[in-house]
Amino acid sequence: MDNFTYCSPTRYIFGKDTESQAGQLTIGMGSKNVMLVYGHGSVVRSGLLDRVKKSLDEAGVTYTELSGIDPNPTDDRVYEGIDIARKKSIDGLVAVGGGSVIDTAKAIALGVPYQGDFWDFFAGKLKAETALPVGTVLTIPAAGSEGSGNCVITRKEGLHKISLRTDFALRPKFAILNPELTVTLPPNQTAAGIADMMAHIMERYFSPTTDVEVTDRISEGILKAIIEEAPKVIANPDDYQARANIMWAGTMAHNGICGCGRVEDWVSHAMEHEISAVYGVTHGAGLAVVFPAWLTFMANHAPTKPAQFARRVFGIINHDDKSAALEGITALRGFYLSLGLPVSFGMLGIATPDIDLLVKKLHENKGEVIGGYYRLTQADTYEIYKMMVNGEI
Amino acid sequence: MDNFTYCSPTRYIFGKDTESQAGQLTIGMGSKNVMLVYGHGSVVRSGLLDRVKKSLDEAGVTYTELSGIDPNPTDDRVYEGIDIARKKSIDGLVAVGGGSVIDTAKAIALGVPYQGDFWDFFAGKLKAETALPVGTVLTIPAAGSEGSGNCVITRKEGLHKISLRTDFALRPKFAILNPELTVTLPPNQTAAGIADMMAHIMERYFSPTTDVEVTDRISEGILKAIIEEAPKVIANPDDYQARANIMWAGTMAHNGICGCGRVEDWVSHAMEHEISAVYGVTHGAGLAVVFPAWLTFMANHAPTKPAQFARRVFGIINHDDKSAALEGITALRGFYLSLGLPVSFGMLGIATPDIDLLVKKLHENKGEVIGGYYRLTQADTYEIYKMMVNGEI
Repeated sequence: MDNFTYCSPTRYIFGKDTESQAGQLTIGMGSKNVMLVYGHGSVVRSGLLDRVKKSLDEAGVTYTELSGIDPNPTDDRVYEGIDIARKKSIDGLVAVGGGSVIDTAKAIALGVPYQGDFWDFFAGKLKAETALPVGTVLTIPAAGSEGSGNCVITRKEGLHKISLRTDFALRPKFAILNPELTVTLPPNQTAAGIADMMAHIMERYFSPTTDVEVTDRISEGILKAIIEEAPKVIANPDDYQARANIMWAGTMAHNGICGCGRVEDWVSHAMEHEISAVYGVTHGAGLAVVFPAWLTFMANHAPTKPAQFARRVFGIINHDDKSAALEGITALRGFYLSLGLPVSFGMLGIATPDIDLLVKKLHENKGEVIGGYYRLTQADTYEIYKMMVNGEI
Repeated sequence: MDNFTYCSPTRYIFGKDTESQAGQLTIGMGSKNVMLVYGHGSVVRSGLLDRVKKSLDEAGVTYTELSGIDPNPTDDRVYEGIDIARKKSIDGLVAVGGGSVIDTAKAIALGVPYQGDFWDFFAGKLKAETALPVGTVLTIPAAGSEGSGNCVITRKEGLHKISLRTDFALRPKFAILNPELTVTLPPNQTAAGIADMMAHIMERYFSPTTDVEVTDRISEGILKAIIEEAPKVIANPDDYQARANIMWAGTMAHNGICGCGRVEDWVSHAMEHEISAVYGVTHGAGLAVVFPAWLTFMANHAPTKPAQFARRVFGIINHDDKSAALEGITALRGFYLSLGLPVSFGMLGIATPDIDLLVKKLHENKGEVIGGYYRLTQADTYEIYKMMVNGEI
């Protein structure tokens, strides 16, 4: 167990009708004139946006709208938002949507008080310390941004999709989590969200740090809960209780509790970010393709933790680590398939992936040798991408 | 899963030598002139107090000392502390010790800005909203007060031991968690702390609320980690990694994450508080006596959750709920005994407990019918106390 610092100050307001508290919570985070950030029509059609506006109105909070945020959000909307926020003297942001909307709001929150180009933070030129307060009303359990200090933005020029991680500056002040808002999500989006939250746990779980039994058991527990609840939300989208568990799991998966005391990995996320930057696929669907391939490589090179994962999460009984790991991967792939997720490039709709390009961009962005659990060269990541072509072991 | 609000803003600084950050963290919580609260000689003898003072000095923080806080802390020291704090214009508190020291500091923090008697909050006359900031340097993993909004103080007059629970006001601003500080704890204190943290999880786990799979799995995971690591710290007190896991488990057990989305129970704690108020026993040792008896009653009246506990935490394989529950209780009692903990009044050194008195005080303090998982009358709690006489099932 390594030394660590952990602080998750986000106030979670979980349950039915909780969006009616948005106004008071916004006042509570010290904001009176906010930017209201959202995506396309669904939050309008569902009436959610009106309910949030009503709550802001009742609390005396004024707002300026920034709408039409796309999945895999891009820097141009962030620049636009920073510009408007400054002109309107915005003192906080309320994001109503999923990870893309929340991350756009976070990046704007970071950019407004900074005199230079907000991309400097994503380019690693300086550390994010100050940002406007951000509140969130979550509609898609997946990215976990509602409880994390992270933010993913794609630079349009060169398609660089970069994840910025802060300890503190970008953690939302509040997260309204109403599972009812998620019952209308289509199955493919529900499933992709589940693959994403599982990946957030697994990127932390596959660690070279030993003696992290508490953090391991918490991680395995949340994964087991997801595996238990996910089939219910696919089979019966109106199942409030299953939706509630999936929503809470998505937040816990990424608020850092599963990473305490250890080195994390994040290569699978980085590999997927290249796929979605080049081919525009859904992040969660891409992760369902990447993870079994990455795990298969690990079963061959460092099977200890994949074997523990297989035994504790999927109940595999096999005393040989490599065999147990491979059985666990089969179970994981079967689980993804049962939710309707793809497990190969072909199933993602990418018949002939440009693996050379993916490897080149991956190592350009992340370095020559990458990974926390096991260090990977370009030859290694090429081999892993190659395994995704047919999703074979 | 019920609606809930959850916010755990405490900054955890975990690992070796972290007490050297006490000064900067105190400045970070907005305090420059603090009350330094601690117990008896051990923090002095170990040199810890000097290291904390050095860190405060280097950060320019001045301090007034309040020392000699006893286990099961009493209201007289709180009144004394409030009086001194006002005279010295204290703007925060730093507690160096275990739960008794931290709880004394919290109660003083609550009392200083309140014009009336601080006991009003414990008597339920008004809600705790404002307190001076409190920072902690933990030396005993047990009470979980370093990460909770709770505070337990005993009123000397009438021996009323009351637990005050706040959502927010009494959550410490920081918790320094250095597992090295715990390697000198004697085995009985280590074991009592382990029983206490397990109880904090179980009081939340035994809930009438269904469909709380994520919170259940997290709770079970932390319990399994404790059961894995506890024998190591008893067998080898110097085992840093096992000490680290136990320390982190103790904080997670009580910072509220195991209670999200459900009604909690807390009858076992209330029953133990009466035992320790009357007989002065160690809280954790008392809990090891209470819990198996309480669970045995539940195996007879509401075996569903005790059976899940037995199966998932202790790996019991038995399809009948009551039988599984009883096997789980045997395993739990065996685990307590393996750590050197008592499991009966006799082993606690109480040959002839005054059960009538305990029942009377319990229901005076908590009400006619008590409990979250299952509602208990005076006849029921009498039966449960009676089962503790010989620790029999």
